[in-house]
Amino acid sequence: MIKYPKTLSKLIGALKRLPGVGNKSAERFAFHLLNWPSTHVEELAALLRDVKEQLTQCADCGCLMETERCSLCHDSTRDNQVICVVAYPKDIFAIELTHEYKGLYHVLGGVLSPMEGKNADQLTIPQLCERIRKLQVREVIIALDSTLEGDTTALYLKQELSKMDVAVLRLAFGLPMGSSLDYVDGGTLARAFRGRRSF
Amino acid sequence: MIKYPKTLSKLIGALKRLPGVGNKSAERFAFHLLNWPSTHVEELAALLRDVKEQLTQCADCGCLMETERCSLCHDSTRDNQVICVVAYPKDIFAIELTHEYKGLYHVLGGVLSPMEGKNADQLTIPQLCERIRKLQVREVIIALDSTLEGDTTALYLKQELSKMDVAVLRLAFGLPMGSSLDYVDGGTLARAFRGRRSF
Repeated sequence: MIKYPKTLSKLIGALKRLPGVGNKSAERFAFHLLNWPSTHVEELAALLRDVKEQLTQCADCGCLMETERCSLCHDSTRDNQVICVVAYPKDIFAIELTHEYKGLYHVLGGVLSPMEGKNADQLTIPQLCERIRKLQVREVIIALDSTLEGDTTALYLKQELSKMDVAVLRLAFGLPMGSSLDYVDGGTLARAFRGRRSF
Repeated sequence: MIKYPKTLSKLIGALKRLPGVGNKSAERFAFHLLNWPSTHVEELAALLRDVKEQLTQCADCGCLMETERCSLCHDSTRDNQVICVVAYPKDIFAIELTHEYKGLYHVLGGVLSPMEGKNADQLTIPQLCERIRKLQVREVIIALDSTLEGDTTALYLKQELSKMDVAVLRLAFGLPMGSSLDYVDGGTLARAFRGRRSF
């Protein structure tokens, strides 16, 4: 019996580190990569290195930046008295796409999750408090996932920030756009009822 | 509004070339890669290059090889009068895992597919005929997908090889292992009936 050549096995092993990629997908990717033109493979290999070397996180807000200065923290058109707290840099881009928010951001670096060994020490909460004081922030909007971990982290943050003179708000919960009532789960519906508002 | 940094956008674009990877998955992969330790990213980048440089296809059978000599063609314990025809090098490894086959292989380089512009000229059929003659092969086993394209290619091959003194066989069709009759599709069941055998 012959086995995969060593380099190929190693590539499959490396690709399996990607999220949601198991053995079968990694094999599929590896064999696909073998058929790519060399220029494409070369480009991907170079980009992998570039992205690691060129992208850094802003020391203040934690957003990804390619330049020396963070384009969010140094944008004078943004309201620097409002901070939106997110778990990961990725979330910032999703929020920016809505064109709904014009304040600053703060990347927590995750959510509280004892199961994954993530506790409050590993989140950037002290830095958040520092920024609130320094920028005299009047409003903190917590934009975390609507999961057990997200909810826990939001409550924890609310408690931590309660000593400061700042309004702590959270994103609204309710029906997602285009949803039909009979397909929406009970929890969402209950939260939509609790959050009912005049229109 | 801020957008993804350029390097990140480019990486997402490159990852989207992988099979079955759309925008969302590519974004997920890219942000995951950002969090990988540098050693892992470096390793993946190096492997991508290595795999392209070090792996070649055997000029005879088309199997992937890392060394100068193909370990399949030069294995004296294998029966070189039987050739198993597969579409891609990947298929060889799947067959080898079964420990069921001890002959040689021949990689066609795909299956006939007019929709994808793949016609007989692009398959290694002349090379297969040449090998059959040279090695005095007595049996050719066609191991192609059980799809429209696979079936067409198998029939085409049978016709092409009919002029030669060689038995042309195909893998058996029937119930997959562990299947329950009421979940098996009609086509499979019909083929299983047609191929019924004593046991």
